[in-house]
Amino acid sequence: MAQTQIHIFDTTLRDGEQVPGCKLNTAQKIAIAQSLETLGVDIIEAGFPISSPGDFQSVRAVAQHVRHATVCALSRAVENDIKTAAEALEGAKHPRIHTGIGVSDIHIKYKLRTTPQDILQRAAAAVRYAKSFVEDVEFYAEDAGRADNEFLARVLEVAIENGATVLNIPDTTGYCLPHQYGAKIAYLMANVRGIHKAILSTHCHNDLGLATANAIAGVEAGARQIECTINGIGERAGNTALEEVVMILRQHADMNFYTNVNTRLLNPVSHQVSETMGMPVQPNKAIVGANAFAHSSGIHQDGVIKKRETYEIIDPFEVGVDHSKIVLTARSGRAALAYRAKCIGIDLMKDELDQVYTEFLLVADRKKEVNDDDLRVLCAQLVNQSVSQLVG
Amino acid sequence: MAQTQIHIFDTTLRDGEQVPGCKLNTAQKIAIAQSLETLGVDIIEAGFPISSPGDFQSVRAVAQHVRHATVCALSRAVENDIKTAAEALEGAKHPRIHTGIGVSDIHIKYKLRTTPQDILQRAAAAVRYAKSFVEDVEFYAEDAGRADNEFLARVLEVAIENGATVLNIPDTTGYCLPHQYGAKIAYLMANVRGIHKAILSTHCHNDLGLATANAIAGVEAGARQIECTINGIGERAGNTALEEVVMILRQHADMNFYTNVNTRLLNPVSHQVSETMGMPVQPNKAIVGANAFAHSSGIHQDGVIKKRETYEIIDPFEVGVDHSKIVLTARSGRAALAYRAKCIGIDLMKDELDQVYTEFLLVADRKKEVNDDDLRVLCAQLVNQSVSQLVG
Repeated sequence: MAQTQIHIFDTTLRDGEQVPGCKLNTAQKIAIAQSLETLGVDIIEAGFPISSPGDFQSVRAVAQHVRHATVCALSRAVENDIKTAAEALEGAKHPRIHTGIGVSDIHIKYKLRTTPQDILQRAAAAVRYAKSFVEDVEFYAEDAGRADNEFLARVLEVAIENGATVLNIPDTTGYCLPHQYGAKIAYLMANVRGIHKAILSTHCHNDLGLATANAIAGVEAGARQIECTINGIGERAGNTALEEVVMILRQHADMNFYTNVNTRLLNPVSHQVSETMGMPVQPNKAIVGANAFAHSSGIHQDGVIKKRETYEIIDPFEVGVDHSKIVLTARSGRAALAYRAKCIGIDLMKDELDQVYTEFLLVADRKKEVNDDDLRVLCAQLVNQSVSQLVG
Repeated sequence: MAQTQIHIFDTTLRDGEQVPGCKLNTAQKIAIAQSLETLGVDIIEAGFPISSPGDFQSVRAVAQHVRHATVCALSRAVENDIKTAAEALEGAKHPRIHTGIGVSDIHIKYKLRTTPQDILQRAAAAVRYAKSFVEDVEFYAEDAGRADNEFLARVLEVAIENGATVLNIPDTTGYCLPHQYGAKIAYLMANVRGIHKAILSTHCHNDLGLATANAIAGVEAGARQIECTINGIGERAGNTALEEVVMILRQHADMNFYTNVNTRLLNPVSHQVSETMGMPVQPNKAIVGANAFAHSSGIHQDGVIKKRETYEIIDPFEVGVDHSKIVLTARSGRAALAYRAKCIGIDLMKDELDQVYTEFLLVADRKKEVNDDDLRVLCAQLVNQSVSQLVG
């Protein structure tokens, strides 16, 4: 069966950049945009041009520098926002305007203080106006995750009628469970008139730790674009992590999807974003965390030394990491000790290994990690002892 | 409908502690165990006693200090491991031995280098031997996530026949998609003879970012215990995060599950574990990240100021965080600026707000975050200007 492409829409420079501490200047935005293009993302959301003069300049510069990917700019369903986004995108080879409005009861009533009927009109007007500038218009139905499905379908129909090419279904507050988000996408695929004229996009937030699972559930139900960020950064608990969805689709080939992402660049680009933004990635982060391919328990180390696949589903090389790490701690076993000793040129015989291991555990109980130097000292002590026993 | 309890099995001190850099001494293990007990977890996995003399001492000390929760110790399906675990647990009020063996083809063939028949015998012997020390025996079927379901069911039947009270179904390599893991639990609920004599437990790893979603899928399919860690730490990309599953079950009350966890302690305990282990939590971590309740984009801030629930599904107070944060950056709007000015005692009229906002954006484009002092300077400049205009 032929594989279907899932479009990767990266919003590191918009949803990621709006986070406390993550603001970038124009040069930094250009550098990351170029890396994203090399990485192979299909759409780069470069910013929110109306938000500040600096961001307008940044989006304009990114639009001029990116050659293959679509460059997208965010706007509210407000004429001045849309016009400013269009101006910022003027130099783009493939420009996209992303506009939209809240569609949940709570957003309509308390944030927008208006009526559902007014939302339909504003959505229509915004898409129509954006379409007067660019061919590629994405409509976001904000807080779709908590919205009534029937009303959501009506809003999307209006967006399609006015020329929207992509329909973004954000779980803005990160509330949905995967099966709920999947059911919402399936409902829209079945009930939105004219749905074949546009593609559905996921945009999931991570407030309950489900952003990645929800995006995958959306794709399984018919969405063909995933909005995501490097390292899963973004408002509050962040967004779907690009590296996670890309590797899920790759590792589960029987789902029959592919992306254009060059996975070997995932770790280098993760480091670049983390360093440029000053946003640390926790060691236990999937795919790009420092410990993602580190093995420390004796049971796991023994398995990995015998055959990597016993405890690793991804070859670290495929995501740009040199090798799996066998780290020696008090939870390590003899197999790891022998392996690491061999790595530094010391071949231990079985009885030597038993002796070194007993000493090793005493050192390891005092230290977080036993490094190569510690190991050399341990082995040297054993050798000296053997020599002195011989002499004795 | 009456709610069903989901048992929270915390393995921060075992699967979490075995990670590079996370090793704890006995005093640290006791302190965290006491916090976990106060937090309300049902089972504390205290360590792997055979792994080192230090860990034996730690498990023994935790067993003596914990009064309400069950204290569990890990062992392989090896007599000496089990006997050592039993010794370490001697002082426990509610001891549990956790023993098991690999059940996937790759683990049987390459790691254990044996036959399925031998696995059945070793599983039976291990549970039987553990049962000779304690009533409460949990059996883990390592790499169950990639194991053949029929063979997995046979192994679990053998464990039940020999007295296992809990059956742990680890997705050891973090490979499963949520619907696959859920289907596995559902298969076992339907096909394991005597399944009503034990409860099924999830133990999910996060290599693809799906550990939380998989645990929830497992519970929806019939599992009644979740193995998890504070901050999601654990081997490689870590485990299911305790704070995430607890809050999912709480926020989605229509699932009809509850846990005994006091959610207001989630953030304090997260900080304690992070600081004691020296394991940073990334700002965009769900529930316990520094930014989990921070709002910085203008659209979101405007909504939260009007009504918190427009962008927040969890009241931060419920998870031990003082308040939501409205952070001023170049992506902030007038609503946030007026709100934060008011917080420091400055009431801006509409035209004043417009003036300060224009200046604010120029400052914000240069800075990552505009703090209260910056805001005071900005507002003071405006006031001076007004005065000079008046004077002029």
